Amino acid sequence: MTRVVVDVMLKPEILDPQGEAVVRALPRLGASTVTGVRIGKRIELDFADGTDEQTMRDQANTIADALLANPVIEDFTIRVESDAEPEPAQ
Amino acid sequence: MTRVVVDVMLKPEILDPQGEAVVRALPRLGASTVTGVRIGKRIELDFADGTDEQTMRDQANTIADALLANPVIEDFTIRVESDAEPEPAQ
Repeated sequence: MTRVVVDVMLKPEILDPQGEAVVRALPRLGASTVTGVRIGKRIELDFADGTDEQTMRDQANTIADALLANPVIEDFTIRVESDAEPEPAQ
Repeated sequence: MTRVVVDVMLKPEILDPQGEAVVRALPRLGASTVTGVRIGKRIELDFADGTDEQTMRDQANTIADALLANPVIEDFTIRVESDAEPEPAQ
């Protein structure tokens, strides 16, 4: 099993009220050196063994574009994680 | 500015209906080699320049535990990203 991670974040120019709410709660926690918080999505796609990397990247791109991100307000990045756990015998 | 990323994912034993919905939509997109999808959160915390790494990790841990993750159903991981963009002159 190989894992591809898609990170979906709001574009920098889009306001992030959820992140702002976290920033306003930080003084209570004593986290005084945090200057900004942005909250997005992390999606883990597991691919069958033996899928070549280019195919995984292409498919992840198609899936992110069609299902995971709203291209009007969000950007996404794709990366292949090589440290996938060994799969149980099948 | 240094960025710390907190990834919050549902624990492996917790069902992820949102991820399952994506899996069910994949055949329409021709993504036949995807075996599983998990959807979580990615939170970017920006720290002021000069904060030492251990302080950032400790504060990120406190913030994640108190505000970002529900420890009953979610796990989180923390990593420091060193490739932060140069900050505009101030």
